[in-house]
Amino acid sequence: MSVLFSFDYRVFVNRSVTLENIKCYGFDMDYTLAEYKSPDYEDLGFELLRDRLVSIGYPHELLRYNYDPTFPTRGLVFDTMYGNLLKVDSNGNILLCSHGFTFLKRDKIHEYYPNNFIQRGNTDRFYILNTLFNLSETYLYGCLVDLFTRCSRFVNCQTGFKHGDLFMSFRSMFQDVRDAMDFVHDTGILKESTLKDLDKYVVRDPNLPVLLTRIKEVAKVFLATNSDYNYTEYPKKQWRAFFDLVVVDTRKPLFFAEGTVLRQVDTNTGKLRIGTYTGDLQHGTVYSGGSSDIVCDLLDVKGKDILYVGDHIFGDILKSKKRQGWKTFLVVPELAKELQVWTENSRKHLDSSCRVCPDISAIQTRIKVVTYRMDRSYGQLGSLLRSGSRQTLFASQLMRYADLYSSTCINLLHYPFSYLFRAQSVLVSSSSDMPVIITGTCIYSHQIPC
Amino acid sequence: MSVLFSFDYRVFVNRSVTLENIKCYGFDMDYTLAEYKSPDYEDLGFELLRDRLVSIGYPHELLRYNYDPTFPTRGLVFDTMYGNLLKVDSNGNILLCSHGFTFLKRDKIHEYYPNNFIQRGNTDRFYILNTLFNLSETYLYGCLVDLFTRCSRFVNCQTGFKHGDLFMSFRSMFQDVRDAMDFVHDTGILKESTLKDLDKYVVRDPNLPVLLTRIKEVAKVFLATNSDYNYTEYPKKQWRAFFDLVVVDTRKPLFFAEGTVLRQVDTNTGKLRIGTYTGDLQHGTVYSGGSSDIVCDLLDVKGKDILYVGDHIFGDILKSKKRQGWKTFLVVPELAKELQVWTENSRKHLDSSCRVCPDISAIQTRIKVVTYRMDRSYGQLGSLLRSGSRQTLFASQLMRYADLYSSTCINLLHYPFSYLFRAQSVLVSSSSDMPVIITGTCIYSHQIPC
Amino acid sequence: MSVLFSFDYRVFVNRSVTLENIKCYGFDMDYTLAEYKSPDYEDLGFELLRDRLVSIGYPHELLRYNYDPTFPTRGLVFDTMYGNLLKVDSNGNILLCSHGFTFLKRDKIHEYYPNNFIQRGNTDRFYILNTLFNLSETYLYGCLVDLFTRCSRFVNCQTGFKHGDLFMSFRSMFQDVRDAMDFVHDTGILKESTLKDLDKYVVRDPNLPVLLTRIKEVAKVFLATNSDYNYTEYPKKQWRAFFDLVVVDTRKPLFFAEGTVLRQVDTNTGKLRIGTYTGDLQHGTVYSGGSSDIVCDLLDVKGKDILYVGDHIFGDILKSKKRQGWKTFLVVPELAKELQVWTENSRKHLDSSCRVCPDISAIQTRIKVVTYRMDRSYGQLGSLLRSGSRQTLFASQLMRYADLYSSTCINLLHYPFSYLFRAQSVLVSSSSDMPVIITGTCIYSHQIPC
Amino acid sequence: MSVLFSFDYRVFVNRSVTLENIKCYGFDMDYTLAEYKSPDYEDLGFELLRDRLVSIGYPHELLRYNYDPTFPTRGLVFDTMYGNLLKVDSNGNILLCSHGFTFLKRDKIHEYYPNNFIQRGNTDRFYILNTLFNLSETYLYGCLVDLFTRCSRFVNCQTGFKHGDLFMSFRSMFQDVRDAMDFVHDTGILKESTLKDLDKYVVRDPNLPVLLTRIKEVAKVFLATNSDYNYTEYPKKQWRAFFDLVVVDTRKPLFFAEGTVLRQVDTNTGKLRIGTYTGDLQHGTVYSGGSSDIVCDLLDVKGKDILYVGDHIFGDILKSKKRQGWKTFLVVPELAKELQVWTENSRKHLDSSCRVCPDISAIQTRIKVVTYRMDRSYGQLGSLLRSGSRQTLFASQLMRYADLYSSTCINLLHYPFSYLFRAQSVLVSSSSDMPVIITGTCIYSHQIPC
Repeated sequence: MSVLFSFDYRVFVNRSVTLENIKCYGFDMDYTLAEYKSPDYEDLGFELLRDRLVSIGYPHELLRYNYDPTFPTRGLVFDTMYGNLLKVDSNGNILLCSHGFTFLKRDKIHEYYPNNFIQRGNTDRFYILNTLFNLSETYLYGCLVDLFTRCSRFVNCQTGFKHGDLFMSFRSMFQDVRDAMDFVHDTGILKESTLKDLDKYVVRDPNLPVLLTRIKEVAKVFLATNSDYNYTEYPKKQWRAFFDLVVVDTRKPLFFAEGTVLRQVDTNTGKLRIGTYTGDLQHGTVYSGGSSDIVCDLLDVKGKDILYVGDHIFGDILKSKKRQGWKTFLVVPELAKELQVWTENSRKHLDSSCRVCPDISAIQTRIKVVTYRMDRSYGQLGSLLRSGSRQTLFASQLMRYADLYSSTCINLLHYPFSYLFRAQSVLVSSSSDMPVIITGTCIYSHQIPC
Repeated sequence: MSVLFSFDYRVFVNRSVTLENIKCYGFDMDYTLAEYKSPDYEDLGFELLRDRLVSIGYPHELLRYNYDPTFPTRGLVFDTMYGNLLKVDSNGNILLCSHGFTFLKRDKIHEYYPNNFIQRGNTDRFYILNTLFNLSETYLYGCLVDLFTRCSRFVNCQTGFKHGDLFMSFRSMFQDVRDAMDFVHDTGILKESTLKDLDKYVVRDPNLPVLLTRIKEVAKVFLATNSDYNYTEYPKKQWRAFFDLVVVDTRKPLFFAEGTVLRQVDTNTGKLRIGTYTGDLQHGTVYSGGSSDIVCDLLDVKGKDILYVGDHIFGDILKSKKRQGWKTFLVVPELAKELQVWTENSRKHLDSSCRVCPDISAIQTRIKVVTYRMDRSYGQLGSLLRSGSRQTLFASQLMRYADLYSSTCINLLHYPFSYLFRAQSVLVSSSSDMPVIITGTCIYSHQIPC
Repeated sequence: MSVLFSFDYRVFVNRSVTLENIKCYGFDMDYTLAEYKSPDYEDLGFELLRDRLVSIGYPHELLRYNYDPTFPTRGLVFDTMYGNLLKVDSNGNILLCSHGFTFLKRDKIHEYYPNNFIQRGNTDRFYILNTLFNLSETYLYGCLVDLFTRCSRFVNCQTGFKHGDLFMSFRSMFQDVRDAMDFVHDTGILKESTLKDLDKYVVRDPNLPVLLTRIKEVAKVFLATNSDYNYTEYPKKQWRAFFDLVVVDTRKPLFFAEGTVLRQVDTNTGKLRIGTYTGDLQHGTVYSGGSSDIVCDLLDVKGKDILYVGDHIFGDILKSKKRQGWKTFLVVPELAKELQVWTENSRKHLDSSCRVCPDISAIQTRIKVVTYRMDRSYGQLGSLLRSGSRQTLFASQLMRYADLYSSTCINLLHYPFSYLFRAQSVLVSSSSDMPVIITGTCIYSHQIPC
Repeated sequence: MSVLFSFDYRVFVNRSVTLENIKCYGFDMDYTLAEYKSPDYEDLGFELLRDRLVSIGYPHELLRYNYDPTFPTRGLVFDTMYGNLLKVDSNGNILLCSHGFTFLKRDKIHEYYPNNFIQRGNTDRFYILNTLFNLSETYLYGCLVDLFTRCSRFVNCQTGFKHGDLFMSFRSMFQDVRDAMDFVHDTGILKESTLKDLDKYVVRDPNLPVLLTRIKEVAKVFLATNSDYNYTEYPKKQWRAFFDLVVVDTRKPLFFAEGTVLRQVDTNTGKLRIGTYTGDLQHGTVYSGGSSDIVCDLLDVKGKDILYVGDHIFGDILKSKKRQGWKTFLVVPELAKELQVWTENSRKHLDSSCRVCPDISAIQTRIKVVTYRMDRSYGQLGSLLRSGSRQTLFASQLMRYADLYSSTCINLLHYPFSYLFRAQSVLVSSSSDMPVIITGTCIYSHQIPC
């Protein structure tokens, strides 16, 4: 298992980044600097959501469900019309489909989706569960569909459940869960519960202050979080000292477009000062709102010289890259486990080359067995990145928008600030004589520097 | 050079396709079934455009310019504000930039684009020259900027050229070229000129009827082209016999969305019948308009069982994949040359692994020299797919949307209809010990079947 | 003054409505059935808004301002760029303009608006203060601009006020007021304060139950309000008995388009039942959400047979008319005073026809004096309907979208249910020999029936 | 009939305009300065459209139809789903409905439009026939529906006609007519036919040069037409001398928004100069494109000082008023006849006041008879402005957007340039004691000045 630990240190590369040229590091807060303990934190989130639903009238039987971390995978799509959880690739092809906790067979999937395909641009219907905060919610959709399906009072229909004059559509169920999510965050009960048992829910990594201190010696560093000031205060009163600039209430992804008004936070009261702040950067001041352009102005840096580290593939990474041309570093906590499963399994099953084997159907069968077994090692809905040989939507977005990625931003400690993260200089050829276009790779040497 | 010929036969794979499951093959016409001879056909297009511009008032000095096939690469972006031709990656980072025929240095590029980056979503400003028909146009932008820049009557300004009371903006220049393009196509003069010397401009491959005949034995086959009936008639009167269904005036990409009214073509007069055709498929009938849904109905096939072969990355491939979930095969005529250059050069320069070398700046310099030299072997604006180690926008779209790709659709002849085009079953690891996510590869054996 | 009282009974007609054909009456709640006492209620709203702003950091000097009912007129436009209150006509021509409490002269207006005109379609910049709830807010904009303009700590700029590093833009001031407005409504403090002194703030008209009872004898009747259930409960527990259908949380204007899910309200707890209600109409049940289409289904009536009575020109009247073709009755409480001022003044000044007078400049001067004097009789910002001889935007919308209008819905009591409200059958000719197109009129006889 | 002639001179007023303040007059070309002879010109247009449809495959029976000027009224709406011609009011209520030449009864209308109402914002379905050029087209829709309805080969369906495998939808019929309209204009055949018999089709009013000459003595004057240069040339080579500025190809309504590039026309060749014209106004030069802002700059006038005279309620009047705040003068050639019919009939039937009559149903019957008889005097589809007592959409737009209107712009000759067109200073009261809001009136004295 020493292999696993060595994996943990790695930063992977999709597009070359010369650390030496990075003049400014930006960080998101939740799941980036504030790392939550899994599955305890998801468990807490699930319970709060579940209890909220019961309090607004959902059946008490719902209380019997407890969070099961082996079920959900991040990046699934909820179909608000049919109540299914879908795992899809970047083109919308369906890789897996569950209704409640039942995994649908190919025939059944075809009945719902005649072409085995969704138009994922239809965001009115399909909701992508992109963030780690969505994990509890993902499991809750499973529970709700399971509950009503089994409940004898309700009749199963195609778009929901019927009970007398009431129709419980998957769509209204979805809306109720989303409202409960807002309730749990906006009322502060999630935060309160977290603060009550901080050691249970939040990782305190002694390397984090080391990393931030080292970065500050060579570059500017800022924090840009969608949380409000009071929420960001709790981890440690002194965290502000690590940053040249702290911005709360950023409203990413809007922050990377036109943004909002920049205001000062009165750090004594936690309240916003009225009016727009128009002066120079004041150290020790906390700001609210603003935009990526304003941050560049205040810190006097250009977008291409910023490396932004975050966990949200859409709000943090895709938008900062696509709208502003920033360099991006995606935090993917699941990566440690993903790599472990992959390594263990590929060693067992895939070493013998299948290319010498002339019988295609035998190959296909063998591949199916191996990949199925491996997929289930990740959990019931499989890997974050793949289903069999096919990439998930999440994986393809990771490749397109994240220049670098790793299981934690702490891994940056293992590379000197003069480091060149280099994508392999190959255009074609993946195996010895087969041409293929390759997007990147990770260059690391056995003599990892730190 | 035998290497080159063996390359020509290959079909490359981004996502697995089991030919056995394909129940229907669709083809685009221009540059897919009707292959044009390069650079003669581009040369013709250029002359017609150039002459048109002179006839509407552009300086007669423009007539001195002749088409130079070594300049343009497909997939460039024209910046209608500053008149630059840009080679960009999928995130909008600038890989190369030319103003007229002058390649801009890094400093100059930064003056135009402070972040070395364009928001390519801004389609009002940036025009992507996606198709092979755009090659002549690409070169013409170079000529026009060159002409006015050198012309002493005009003063160079940031967004165009000034001469007395007239301001020749890059934007109006762009509009004039686009109008000339429409003129050349809509009036039929390009078609007439092509017909006058068909052998000079069009490839007659005896394998094409062989391919279509073989396909028709195992699957349904249709033609869907944006050209009108009269235009599609010219290659050969008998081509209709190869297809179960012929649809002209398809107005792709609209065809893959809501489409238009389906009408019958009177093949005696070339005129459309009035009203919408609502009956079953009639063999020997030519249709106009319609949509991909109507084609599926008429042929009684599902989208996932169709392999659509075309040359237009946006109108043929991206849209059929993203909106309809079709299997896709992109024809990339440049691929033969791309592979030849790559092979010859990678053999010469890249065999010794750079990984043992501890001096990073030496590596970087060496890589720069090698890649620059190789890039120029493709032509002045370099490879269709890469610039140094970085992928172009075109390459990334090819990978996302084309399941298969090859230099010509004729290459399908070299694979049996029972063939499994298989993307490599790897998640991570591109070289022995380097993990990376890989999207696909081409599986072919030394014993190519046909 | 007996004239004034007779005015109060009138219902005015823009387009003919045959009461006999009306099969269903719908009512809005606030300012329609629940009539608030002016200016006490506006006074209360103003104080809550003002205090909220001070509590979020606005200068304490703001507390010195008290509501002045003689300043605001409904239907003004706030220019969030320059901080001006504008009175405009339906084409966006400026009739009056105040900055704080200073009325700008023609020259100054031209500096701000070179064409004396706003593009009122630009809703990002221009905010229409359409409802009676907006009156306090209107006055507050005046106070804020006045306060900062006079405050020596702040420097006056074109788009706001500067104080050191802070810039207090009119736009952020606007946003703060809007947020305060939401705070006052959403937290329920406005409602609480109202309930504490109901007699001070709410009119209890004994004729209201009489009207509703009579209507219910001849037609169906429903209540559709954007307020939530708990809010609508307070006037009287028994009000539900007057209606065939009560719908709360209607989210007009969305209600007149696609609407939201229809849910039952548990009238014991005030909470919503989960799921969508799909059954028939249940008497005594209160519903939440839904849409105008659902209401028609539940009550089994067609849109053209409904007369909808509301006070919101956009959310109640324009939308129900334009999207659903309902008959509309606009409640305009200001009408009593508008008519009184008009009558008194027109008697004094306008009786002698100006047409015999040959000296145009003398006419013009005289008209100006008369209209100015009359305009000020309405209050500082003049009439809701006119400025001089020119109609306001509000008046033109009233004419386009309200079939009937009156100062209170109680006035319906004065007409039998067999009544024909008839718009005059004239196309042209307003005075004896002058042709003009006329939109409608009120037909009532001296023998008012009830 | 002397009444008729006196009517002809009048200019009607919706909002006051002081001619003395007008610093610039703008004119549209077609139907404004170039007045076409009705019904000869509509007759010509109809024949060209009809013949075009037959040439693309419509039944030869269509040739039997000839233009009937008594059928169409301007401003009708064509329902492309059901093939009906609708006369509607500004709220979309249906006033009249014809299917082919059959006028539908109330019951039948309700079947098509359950609420007797269309959502006219649905421009995909409903097409407004706004201009005088649309009159032939309006009649053609009647002919086509009539033809197919009677034709025994076709089966009548709700959305079109069926004949074997062909479905002739009303929608595709509409598209064919629109394409034929473009064909007739773009190929120049309408222009050629007009030029062949200019005296038959175009009014030569000797007062036009008088008017333009007089205006030029007191103000600037420009021509802004959507026609191209060659088309505008034909009426008279010398017309350019009357204008300070001539702009062709204006692409109204775009002209009143962002507009297009301003280019010079080479008046020798009729071709455009390349590039954008950026200099000062050159007398005798003709321009192409541009925008209303550019016109203001070139002429150094402000929008509010311009009176723009045109015949297109949307492209000329609504847009110049709403987007630019110009003063507007709508040319309504039909007005002469409208006023004549009105006068003759109102004298006969409406003199005895209906207000003394106590029996409402008797009043209603009598009104119906009178208004029906009068409506038919205008033609089969009735008045441009009314249907019974109800205003048409056209009338309401005329009132909202046209400050002045008259049957011809020549009528401006009858008012001195010091004239004040004054809207009546009345807010309320249309008859002695009935209050109503009135929008305007026409002030003219018996001593008409010229």
